[in-house]
Amino acid sequence: MERYDIAIVGNGPAGVSAAITSKIRNKKIVLFGSNQLSDKVGKAHEILNYTGLPRISGEELNKNLKKHLADLDIEITEKKINMVYSMGDHFNLQAGEEFIEATSVILAGGVVMEKALEGENEFLGKGVSYCATCDAQFYKGKTVGVLGYNEESVEEALYLAEIVDKVLYFPMKNETKELIAKASLPDNLSVVEEEIADLKNLAIKSENQEGFMRKVSCIETKNNKYEMEGVFVLRDAVAPDKLVPGIELDGNHVKVNLSMETNIPGLFACGDIAGKPYQYIKAAGQGNVAALSAVSYLNTGV
Amino acid sequence: MERYDIAIVGNGPAGVSAAITSKIRNKKIVLFGSNQLSDKVGKAHEILNYTGLPRISGEELNKNLKKHLADLDIEITEKKINMVYSMGDHFNLQAGEEFIEATSVILAGGVVMEKALEGENEFLGKGVSYCATCDAQFYKGKTVGVLGYNEESVEEALYLAEIVDKVLYFPMKNETKELIAKASLPDNLSVVEEEIADLKNLAIKSENQEGFMRKVSCIETKNNKYEMEGVFVLRDAVAPDKLVPGIELDGNHVKVNLSMETNIPGLFACGDIAGKPYQYIKAAGQGNVAALSAVSYLNTGV
Repeated sequence: MERYDIAIVGNGPAGVSAAITSKIRNKKIVLFGSNQLSDKVGKAHEILNYTGLPRISGEELNKNLKKHLADLDIEITEKKINMVYSMGDHFNLQAGEEFIEATSVILAGGVVMEKALEGENEFLGKGVSYCATCDAQFYKGKTVGVLGYNEESVEEALYLAEIVDKVLYFPMKNETKELIAKASLPDNLSVVEEEIADLKNLAIKSENQEGFMRKVSCIETKNNKYEMEGVFVLRDAVAPDKLVPGIELDGNHVKVNLSMETNIPGLFACGDIAGKPYQYIKAAGQGNVAALSAVSYLNTGV
Repeated sequence: MERYDIAIVGNGPAGVSAAITSKIRNKKIVLFGSNQLSDKVGKAHEILNYTGLPRISGEELNKNLKKHLADLDIEITEKKINMVYSMGDHFNLQAGEEFIEATSVILAGGVVMEKALEGENEFLGKGVSYCATCDAQFYKGKTVGVLGYNEESVEEALYLAEIVDKVLYFPMKNETKELIAKASLPDNLSVVEEEIADLKNLAIKSENQEGFMRKVSCIETKNNKYEMEGVFVLRDAVAPDKLVPGIELDGNHVKVNLSMETNIPGLFACGDIAGKPYQYIKAAGQGNVAALSAVSYLNTGV
């Protein structure tokens, strides 16, 4: 299998910056993210403090970043990384059913803004999943819920409907509520009609099971209960400790030092995932530092 | 006396970025530096990795930074800060004979690339000075040397010649050698004619004095000895521990954490002065973080 020098997970300003500097340093890189770049940046009306680009719109900043990537022949690999496993001298990155190898990894996937749902952490791997492509097969003949935070969640729900018996789509944001309303849905995919505010307080629960055997059996909202065996929580960002087993956190964020090193050798983090402030120019700066630290790790092992 | 919320010392990408974010956060700021912005940036032929501005020349980057400052009505105050004194609840910044007050300070003055000369640290305050405006008066009727690393050193040498008996100008770089050659010099100012490589290895010495009483008496090069009582070392950047008494260092750099805080409350550092890598986009990112930390310090005292 082809092994990359540096895999960069996420392509907001931090990931793009990391890719640019890594490429300039002649490393074999792969940059994972969306061809549209960061949705959050794209929707920013006006950015006042991206140093050197006064009053730039988010859309324009994304155009500039794309131009910079194109100028250096850096491609975007449109795969969602679900897990990053440290293998000692390299990393395995899981994208659906596929694995990609890299000697070092830079995490630049942004931050999970929402706090975990009730039951989400408890039932992770016991009915709760972050990846439809990875886990759909386990729910053949069963009912699953899709908690749709991001645009892709609509497509993933449609995909799940092809595999499982029944899909309940919970629109967790106005954007996804509008999106699923426009989609043409198969008979076995239905949309939960509740206030988003109520959905945000839902609980993932297990009934009729005890202790070690507890698995998801339902989702409860203020007024309703929905029976199901699987829950797919589909957000843009995955909490870092769910993405990388063994990673050390500082609150919600990956713990880094000034060189953007994490506690795992060869693994670096930058941008929002590495802590506040959530600022584009800070993210770009940290991406640059992470890339140079990765280059140094590749060259010298430290 | 007028007291600023935030004084920013240095206006390369780090200082400019700090000024931009501080101003957006409605703080009363003062930005010290050259109207030409960073000389180092200005001379960069092509910058490949200033994220969002592909293949920009240093000259163009400086133009963009100036445009950004102008867009936010941020003025540059062309004063050289020689010392920063922490007074507990505020700072006093010394520019020549003038003092400026600020509640918080962001150091963004770049890094001293040259290692200290032999005798430089030993005789600081005992004949060695970094500020002609501050110390010229102590050398009336005496001979002084000017070690000219930066453009301003030529002007400062001319000023010193008005006050002291005799000035010997040591051109420490090709740029200053060319500059002083073009200047019209008074009779009491002469230029040392030696190879720059030899000048770089000069030693500042004390003869005929012992122990506590030792003061500068001469400069020695490989082949010559020049008698003098004062040595003015005129570089663009001053070593941070000479700029701020009591500041904690990490090697050559100011020791900072991820929030760009130094060991002194209310004092922040960013860019090259805060450590490697010496990269423009990293400097801009750290300037943003330093500004937000200063804002937080002003608002909450931490």
